[in-house]
Amino acid sequence: MKSIEVYRSIVEEKIHALSLSNAPQKLYKPIEYIMKLEGKRIRPSLMLAVADMYGLPETDIIEPAIGIEIFHNFTLVHDDIMDKATLRRGKETLHHAFGLNAGILSGDAMQILSYQKICSVHHTVVQDVLKVFNQTAVEVCEGQQMDMDFEEEYTVSEFEYLKMIELKTAVLLACSLKIPGILAFASESDLHHLYEFGRYIGIAFQIQDDLLDSFGSVAQVGKRIGGDICNNKKTLLLLKAMTTPNKYDKEILENWLQTSEYNEQKIQDVKKVFEDSFAKKYTEDKMMKYYIKSIEHLEQLSVAKEKKTILYDFASLIINRTY
Amino acid sequence: MKSIEVYRSIVEEKIHALSLSNAPQKLYKPIEYIMKLEGKRIRPSLMLAVADMYGLPETDIIEPAIGIEIFHNFTLVHDDIMDKATLRRGKETLHHAFGLNAGILSGDAMQILSYQKICSVHHTVVQDVLKVFNQTAVEVCEGQQMDMDFEEEYTVSEFEYLKMIELKTAVLLACSLKIPGILAFASESDLHHLYEFGRYIGIAFQIQDDLLDSFGSVAQVGKRIGGDICNNKKTLLLLKAMTTPNKYDKEILENWLQTSEYNEQKIQDVKKVFEDSFAKKYTEDKMMKYYIKSIEHLEQLSVAKEKKTILYDFASLIINRTY
Repeated sequence: MKSIEVYRSIVEEKIHALSLSNAPQKLYKPIEYIMKLEGKRIRPSLMLAVADMYGLPETDIIEPAIGIEIFHNFTLVHDDIMDKATLRRGKETLHHAFGLNAGILSGDAMQILSYQKICSVHHTVVQDVLKVFNQTAVEVCEGQQMDMDFEEEYTVSEFEYLKMIELKTAVLLACSLKIPGILAFASESDLHHLYEFGRYIGIAFQIQDDLLDSFGSVAQVGKRIGGDICNNKKTLLLLKAMTTPNKYDKEILENWLQTSEYNEQKIQDVKKVFEDSFAKKYTEDKMMKYYIKSIEHLEQLSVAKEKKTILYDFASLIINRTY
Repeated sequence: MKSIEVYRSIVEEKIHALSLSNAPQKLYKPIEYIMKLEGKRIRPSLMLAVADMYGLPETDIIEPAIGIEIFHNFTLVHDDIMDKATLRRGKETLHHAFGLNAGILSGDAMQILSYQKICSVHHTVVQDVLKVFNQTAVEVCEGQQMDMDFEEEYTVSEFEYLKMIELKTAVLLACSLKIPGILAFASESDLHHLYEFGRYIGIAFQIQDDLLDSFGSVAQVGKRIGGDICNNKKTLLLLKAMTTPNKYDKEILENWLQTSEYNEQKIQDVKKVFEDSFAKKYTEDKMMKYYIKSIEHLEQLSVAKEKKTILYDFASLIINRTY
């Protein structure tokens, strides 16, 4: 087993070696731009790690791993259009740098490229891999739609919110962990635990993302802090804070929810309510619960304990990260 | 063998039975809307016909045939956004009816649904089918990019124009004809001729499409006539007309190329130049040449002549159609 940083550097090297200088340039340049922005490369790095856990050679996993990373980036490109985002990983979003049409079409081509990579797995398992990947890809779209729907709804339940982040974020991580298991002919039980570990830690990951959007720092997170607050995004923080019995805090929230422009004062005020109403504490506790569930599945994986260390470390990193 | 109308009605019935009422509704309703607009269903109908030519049961081809039709419609949805089109098949385009975000996201989900359908083929051939489909899907994006690039270029060569329509339109038809051949374990030679027949008749199809955009009638074509002329679209008609030695005609063209709004007078004037400069005649002759090439490949297909009738009839229909 290598360290997660080593897997990450293998992935990074492979991404930088991608042949993306084909014609027409206006299709491929934007893809090269977004793929070569520095990223955490979480999904493909974990895929390499799980492959290693099962003794699968790197050559068998690297192509689908890159495919998953391209797919993930494709979803970011199209989401950034829909969310009108201008910054991604501290740099201009693709459509902001190259225009709407490039955002749509280069995104489409990325989705196809991801399939091309994923289809390259061994023919005996290609249909099993595609089955979980297709299902996941549809769910990611459903999650993004739910996220957009929430913007227009007055209230969203905690259950709906958790379902949304499961679909939008967690299932792709779960799918990424399962694919190397499928390629290594792992048992049905192991495939289940790999998927569930990924799903639970993926939900924890997104909750932490929401926490960082309000309580992180721009230097660490790489994007403007307080975006969710200014956009009145219905995160668990806001949903919980809205239920506060403190009338004064509730009034502050309700007043600020009337506006949706960027406003420093709003960010300060709302963050204070998140803390005073214990919504922040509640959200952190929720994240811990999902972390613990993920660990329960990790424990049941029929792989030597020392080989699982990398996944244990990854799970702790998720809940302790500041970026 | 059945008639093309019978194959078409089988496809239509299958499309109308598609389960698209899942949640979230805002994702699936637009897909249902666009898929259930009346269409020619050319690709899936031909796929059923080719399957029949090789004695392949309908149950083996119907899913990938629907997959190809969904993919085709996905490309229309995203192209309509990029081209700012408001009408499609005489009805509102998807993004015009449901908004930009629906256009992007429902389109993305359609692309995944098309993969889901195409992946359902027999496991022994799934990788062969996906190889040609993936390649084709990338080429369709490249063709759309070239098409957009042409808008910003002062001149486009006939070679570039033909390459663009080959990628944007013809390769998907070629791929559609090849897939049932792959499923039926047709010979390499037959697979080649099926593909090339599709590619050549696909190019002829697009040339006819361009002719109809200027010389068809709104009642028959289902969209406003003269759109290409008003947008100064660099079709073969325009590219050829620009080379006219008649200075007077050339001046008319160059004057009108300064504007790009909808203008009845412009349409009349430019059409007259297309005719007087023999650009229309040249374009019709070009289409005939591609038709003849397609027939040459059809003749070499190792299938009983009477079984090929449906493809001969289809090819004649393409060049004689008025819709």
